[in-house]
Amino acid sequence: MSETLTAAVLIIGDEILSGRTQDTNLGYLAKLLGTLGIDMREGRVVPDVEEEIVAAVNTLRARYTYVFTTGGIGPTHDDITADAVAKAFGVGIDYHPEAFAMLAARYQPGEFNDMRKRMARVPDGATLIRNSVSTAPGFQIGNVFVMAGVPMIMRAMMEDVTPRLARGTVVTTATISAKIPEGCIAAALAQIQSGHRTVAIGSYPFYAPEGPGVQLVIRGRNVGEVESAAAAIEHALAAEGVVSSRDF
Amino acid sequence: MSETLTAAVLIIGDEILSGRTQDTNLGYLAKLLGTLGIDMREGRVVPDVEEEIVAAVNTLRARYTYVFTTGGIGPTHDDITADAVAKAFGVGIDYHPEAFAMLAARYQPGEFNDMRKRMARVPDGATLIRNSVSTAPGFQIGNVFVMAGVPMIMRAMMEDVTPRLARGTVVTTATISAKIPEGCIAAALAQIQSGHRTVAIGSYPFYAPEGPGVQLVIRGRNVGEVESAAAAIEHALAAEGVVSSRDF
Repeated sequence: MSETLTAAVLIIGDEILSGRTQDTNLGYLAKLLGTLGIDMREGRVVPDVEEEIVAAVNTLRARYTYVFTTGGIGPTHDDITADAVAKAFGVGIDYHPEAFAMLAARYQPGEFNDMRKRMARVPDGATLIRNSVSTAPGFQIGNVFVMAGVPMIMRAMMEDVTPRLARGTVVTTATISAKIPEGCIAAALAQIQSGHRTVAIGSYPFYAPEGPGVQLVIRGRNVGEVESAAAAIEHALAAEGVVSSRDF
Repeated sequence: MSETLTAAVLIIGDEILSGRTQDTNLGYLAKLLGTLGIDMREGRVVPDVEEEIVAAVNTLRARYTYVFTTGGIGPTHDDITADAVAKAFGVGIDYHPEAFAMLAARYQPGEFNDMRKRMARVPDGATLIRNSVSTAPGFQIGNVFVMAGVPMIMRAMMEDVTPRLARGTVVTTATISAKIPEGCIAAALAQIQSGHRTVAIGSYPFYAPEGPGVQLVIRGRNVGEVESAAAAIEHALAAEGVVSSRDF
């Protein structure tokens, strides 16, 4: 089996865990990484607490090809991600000359205060992640990419990150929709899944005003196997007299 | 220090990690638990892989007062949460007589097939979680509450779960909004945070067409301390000549 490229996202911030802010970064990253053939395998949400961030970074970076963190890199006291990541890697942290110069150039004289200078602090050995929206950079250290939590800025940072990532075989997805309760097709699905081990078949019920339905999602890296499993599912649905539609 | 009630949410499902489905259950649970004085401390998203679910359940149930899982309790082959939770607790799993009877009564003769019967399988020693939307129950085992992933059903299940939960002191939140970049107030905030250790002050920048702004969120269980920190922040903003507004 060839090596699969994997990823985890670590969402850092009290505002997510209080329900104040709805995270949308995980889904965005999952889709973007999908286009590169990289599998998102795990997500974690932790509070603005140093030991929680350190522990999560160290667990995730050991398990996955890449780790993407979001949140906690601004100028205020609750922005502790850079320090936590330095601690996780057991390295020092200091002003990064380039980051410092970029930020210094952005502010009017007297505005580049000590708190704002915090945004130039980067763990030793890290490289900057630039973005076209805000001047404040993220950084990469090892296989960990540390980014802003604000979605617009995080997305801009991924433009700088994407060229640094390896490419895997992209997963092919076929989605079959049918107006049938999933329980009617479940036995056939289980059998088809058993016969097509290289694909993952997901069954997602939905409730429409005109009655229950299901979306069947077939995912795999072998296009022929995805096609074959999808055809088998369509055949099983037709045998039940159910009309289905397919999207690739 | 009195015991704080804590919680984690474990979101189970490939569809979240592929970006196909946007999770909204974490935020809903965070807010609901907040009204009960229970702190959401961690979120995890894992795929439909048994060992991942087992490991996450066992880590989280040892660390937090309560664990809430969402997803993977339907009739199809990819619904493996009940088996994984039984494995995590090291107990058997079998048809629950009440769940079986409820489901049997729901279906027309001949419709209650083997796959649908799977939804009546519950780990030994678990109690059912009923819901008013679908007949299929969730279950509670120890401090773990296993619920549906479909938000409408999960929310209905929480109506049955809520009376089972202990109550803590509710966190008081004050939110101060100001049209100022957060970097201008960051030093004052750090000082105020140092002087008010029982509250957590979060700083969340936003970008409006008319310029940058910040929301400062003060959270704590001591109302007087929250009020005192909020007043100190308003004072600091006024000293900068900035008009602010406060929401409790």
